[in-house]
Amino acid sequence: MKGNIIIGQSGGPTAVINSSLAGAIKASWKEGIRRIYGMHYGIEGLLQEDIIDIEDYITSSHDLSLLKRTPSSFLGTCRYKLPPIEGNEKIYEKIFDILDKKNIEYFLYNGGNDSMDTIKQLSDYALQHNKKQKFIGIPKTIDNDLPMTDHCPGYGSAAKYIATSMKEIIRDNESYGVSKPTICIVEIMGRHAGWLTASAAMSRDIDCNGPDLIYLPEVPFDVKDFIKRIKALAKNKKSIVVAVSEGLQDKNGKFICEQGTVNDHVDAFGHKQLAGTAAYLASVVTHETGLKSRYIEFSSLQRCAAHLASRIDSDEAYNVGFLAAKAAFEGKSGMMVTIGVEQREPYVEVYDLFDVHEVANIERKVPLNWITNDGTYVSDEYLAYARPFIIGSVQAYTAAGLPIHITMNKKKR
Amino acid sequence: MKGNIIIGQSGGPTAVINSSLAGAIKASWKEGIRRIYGMHYGIEGLLQEDIIDIEDYITSSHDLSLLKRTPSSFLGTCRYKLPPIEGNEKIYEKIFDILDKKNIEYFLYNGGNDSMDTIKQLSDYALQHNKKQKFIGIPKTIDNDLPMTDHCPGYGSAAKYIATSMKEIIRDNESYGVSKPTICIVEIMGRHAGWLTASAAMSRDIDCNGPDLIYLPEVPFDVKDFIKRIKALAKNKKSIVVAVSEGLQDKNGKFICEQGTVNDHVDAFGHKQLAGTAAYLASVVTHETGLKSRYIEFSSLQRCAAHLASRIDSDEAYNVGFLAAKAAFEGKSGMMVTIGVEQREPYVEVYDLFDVHEVANIERKVPLNWITNDGTYVSDEYLAYARPFIIGSVQAYTAAGLPIHITMNKKKR
Repeated sequence: MKGNIIIGQSGGPTAVINSSLAGAIKASWKEGIRRIYGMHYGIEGLLQEDIIDIEDYITSSHDLSLLKRTPSSFLGTCRYKLPPIEGNEKIYEKIFDILDKKNIEYFLYNGGNDSMDTIKQLSDYALQHNKKQKFIGIPKTIDNDLPMTDHCPGYGSAAKYIATSMKEIIRDNESYGVSKPTICIVEIMGRHAGWLTASAAMSRDIDCNGPDLIYLPEVPFDVKDFIKRIKALAKNKKSIVVAVSEGLQDKNGKFICEQGTVNDHVDAFGHKQLAGTAAYLASVVTHETGLKSRYIEFSSLQRCAAHLASRIDSDEAYNVGFLAAKAAFEGKSGMMVTIGVEQREPYVEVYDLFDVHEVANIERKVPLNWITNDGTYVSDEYLAYARPFIIGSVQAYTAAGLPIHITMNKKKR
Repeated sequence: MKGNIIIGQSGGPTAVINSSLAGAIKASWKEGIRRIYGMHYGIEGLLQEDIIDIEDYITSSHDLSLLKRTPSSFLGTCRYKLPPIEGNEKIYEKIFDILDKKNIEYFLYNGGNDSMDTIKQLSDYALQHNKKQKFIGIPKTIDNDLPMTDHCPGYGSAAKYIATSMKEIIRDNESYGVSKPTICIVEIMGRHAGWLTASAAMSRDIDCNGPDLIYLPEVPFDVKDFIKRIKALAKNKKSIVVAVSEGLQDKNGKFICEQGTVNDHVDAFGHKQLAGTAAYLASVVTHETGLKSRYIEFSSLQRCAAHLASRIDSDEAYNVGFLAAKAAFEGKSGMMVTIGVEQREPYVEVYDLFDVHEVANIERKVPLNWITNDGTYVSDEYLAYARPFIIGSVQAYTAAGLPIHITMNKKKR
């Protein structure tokens, strides 16, 4: 008889991370697995034996549908990277003791780079020590920076949120027209990779001009050139909207949000106050041009807006969760499920498994030839790549006008 | 034969301001009005004779449906308050000359307090000078602070955006659980009235605990008491979420965002840098408790998120626009359309007209008995009042995964 399964969620939450959980649960039901465990707050919780029985909360297809519509990690998450096996055997022994005690044979971990490193280490240890457990990684990151997979679940929904909100912000910013131009700078997540910031370009269509400028962290940012472009735009436009990555750096690799004395001040408590990239650039624009500027930070809204989740993204997240469980049941280990795209229009995706050693700790950035030569926009190649990911909606279940979520507030049994 | 109509939009945009425009257009079609003009950028545009022919862009029911789904002012807006008639007769003569030249008999203006003042002044002038023009005000403000009307179109959709996003932010903030508590402070618009901030309370339901604390500008804010409450909450909770109005003031009437030296620094360019209320409070929390804090500003998203517009709000906005035009056609002037609520459950609204002299320049605040005694939450009376406003959705028209808007980018004829 097969052993039990445990599933963990790690790193920053997304709008569809729970779709992967739903897929893994469904596959486990199909396989007839006796107990479906969840790590409460990822591997960090597991190390404290904080394990929940998922079927205390989720028992039906209806629950799975609600789970798919619930943003953020249902099981709770953590930011914890396992240390190397050598010299830290005690930690690994502890983990395997806990797994053995609960007769856990299948271990799924849903996350980004660090999570795939966790799968790598644990599967290596199992191999070295002849342990029965199988370890499979489920990709997830709004940053879209995992290698070997065409794209990552979570990215499409965040991109849909960004493109939709950008369209609404541009309409809002255009509404004042008689007075001086207004420059609105929108800050988007992605410290090292510009995938999320690039998605702002999708707002450009026949009914929207899109942002006037888009700056990704892959290209060094030149404040002087930026101001020159704003001045040129302001000659003919009343509304100027700029999308910037939080991770913009100058040619010396220094973060823009750490530039100059604007941000170097120390507050009354002696803490260094770091303004964001957009806040900093808005203050420079007003100083250098005398024009009105404002900034908007999408903050965590861009990763938790399940009410704007993309259908394709949600379905793919479900599928990689399902297929990860299936792969484990088939005896595979040390692998991550990947998504390939067979054709982009109409969109057809395919799934595969890759050795997690090829995935862990590698950050995939936006190719430089997908960024225009002057570094102020993304190319049509990017748009062709990304447009399929935001197609379709996941109709929310609502009560009294608000989306309904499923939570661990109350046990079912 | 009846004269022509002109419609203007004023003040901050909302998600449903164009529904009112759609209602006014529909009523004009029904009445057989020959020309339907729009002020391009409100009264400020009118004074420059910047007038558009709305039927250059909107000619069908399909266009009206799209218009209802388009956020922000389709016609463009302004912040401009007409000076008193006495001593400024030239401005009034100019306006009436422009109106007479285009044979405009009906004048609708859609906005908040300042807009109702515009209607008051213009209708007074018309009466004094025996002019034929009729002036009717259409209420609009996300701030919900107009008197005589139970509530204002625009408020329901902003409230729905805030309650939905609050629910998603709370789920996001709850996802980390092993490490120290995280305090997330969310800043909501409303400089003088707390209606928008109060709407965060609607996120509380069986699947969400809602914000832990809600602070409205109607009650003086005490930073020490706030920190005491955060410390008490942090003993038992890993996730603490607080909703604050941007307009919080201390007992001396000084804005919290202007407190202390944290915000009093001058940047490299000699400009005073004002952090927001939430940013300031987050820095105080971290200093006083050593806990992790972050802040989120909904910024203009809360007024332009048409993708989350409330059905009831959109319908009411349409109706007040329609009824304003109808009232003008019936010869009424110097009035504002108001909404009354006959019963709240099931919800039945009624419409009326009020003398604009009773409306202009009065700001309606949240009643103090709708705020809990300790000033940290709103009461069930508020919830019973507001819950109907967020019911139902306006299904977006989408293409390639994004909502479609109607704009003035291209003339139809």
